Amino acid sequence: MPNPTAAMLVIGDEILSGRTRDANMHYLATELTKAGIDLQEVRVVSDDPDAITAAVKALSAGYDTVFTSGGIGPTHDDITAENVARAFDRPIGIREDARALLAAHYARSGQELNEARLRMARIPDGATLIDNPISTAPGFSIKNVHVMAGVPSIFQAMLASILPTLTGGAPVLSQTLEINRGEGDIAGPLGELAARYSDLSIGSYPFQRDGCYGANIVIRGQDGSRVDAAMAELAAIFSA
Amino acid sequence: MPNPTAAMLVIGDEILSGRTRDANMHYLATELTKAGIDLQEVRVVSDDPDAITAAVKALSAGYDTVFTSGGIGPTHDDITAENVARAFDRPIGIREDARALLAAHYARSGQELNEARLRMARIPDGATLIDNPISTAPGFSIKNVHVMAGVPSIFQAMLASILPTLTGGAPVLSQTLEINRGEGDIAGPLGELAARYSDLSIGSYPFQRDGCYGANIVIRGQDGSRVDAAMAELAAIFSA
Repeated sequence: MPNPTAAMLVIGDEILSGRTRDANMHYLATELTKAGIDLQEVRVVSDDPDAITAAVKALSAGYDTVFTSGGIGPTHDDITAENVARAFDRPIGIREDARALLAAHYARSGQELNEARLRMARIPDGATLIDNPISTAPGFSIKNVHVMAGVPSIFQAMLASILPTLTGGAPVLSQTLEINRGEGDIAGPLGELAARYSDLSIGSYPFQRDGCYGANIVIRGQDGSRVDAAMAELAAIFSA
Repeated sequence: MPNPTAAMLVIGDEILSGRTRDANMHYLATELTKAGIDLQEVRVVSDDPDAITAAVKALSAGYDTVFTSGGIGPTHDDITAENVARAFDRPIGIREDARALLAAHYARSGQELNEARLRMARIPDGATLIDNPISTAPGFSIKNVHVMAGVPSIFQAMLASILPTLTGGAPVLSQTLEINRGEGDIAGPLGELAARYSDLSIGSYPFQRDGCYGANIVIRGQDGSRVDAAMAELAAIFSA
């Protein structure tokens, strides 16, 4: 059975202007691979209402699960929540449980729960809150979309609370063989091997080291015995 | 006049599995910002023919310029060229000028120009070659899509040869003010400032340092006097 599929939507002008280097995509990719969930697409869009809404609709319809990152803070450029609500034609307003979380948090820290901070309690109707153990303001899940913070430490904490609730597939096993020849020398026999093992994913990742070309050949699949068999053939071909 | 728009398409299972951390997106974002070209969307898709074709069509129709990264090497998993051709209903075959480049390169290095390496001379009809000073195998431009290698050093060299051929807009000027208060304290006045300067992009990027919250407020725009004016107001508001 194929593994469940996922997509990611990164929201933020700061990524697209080069001001900030996104760190959440690589983290999510690694965690989903471990969980047996197949990340098939990532989109990065700017802080633009129509771009966010269109991407949420397209990815929610196309994949089993969608993770978003960014745009759920208190400032005017944090517009993710209302546009996720808009994508699903849901009303959005301040929700009492989210407000209570924030009220307790700011009371403890002696800060004011002002209008801006209250924006972080706006949750689309019918959504479930995602716990934020770092800075309290929650994320939320609506339909198959999980809306999370862009700050990496918070993104990671939120993901940790969602992942156990998702149905993963068989973990994908991976073996790598480094071959110290140029990809062009490897490509013919490698392509034939890949055709014989079409149930596996066989990738070639070239490198250059000390002036010599080489490639890491990565064989991935859910059936360990098939991965072993393909790797044994690969090693035999290139040790000849 | 608004700046020209751009999108990027990153192609490769290795990014989506977490095996490889993409480096080209951040590089491209930085270079385009310097050139006054507005990167508005990035998509990452797997080595899947339909995913590549659909993304090329959508991005080519939606933005002035598209840059792709990855999938133009000699191995079986390098399927970008044929699927870009398919997106534009163009035939693809080995092109004589590309073959000549490869033949000269491999003759110099004493390697065989075999069938696998010849795949790198397959260029869609009507495309223009992009010079590859690192490892010779060319990229290509077709319509508004520039097809480049995924290896960062080659991606960067190819981009350097394309950028001067593109019409940039006014460079975007940027000023940053660090404010050592929580975003929730800043958000109200900042939102009012952003509304008064709706021709500028004003972003708030929170941080936590030594247990204290703060935010970098970034004001970006093409008109330096407007950016100056907004920054002066911002400084006045938060020095009060």
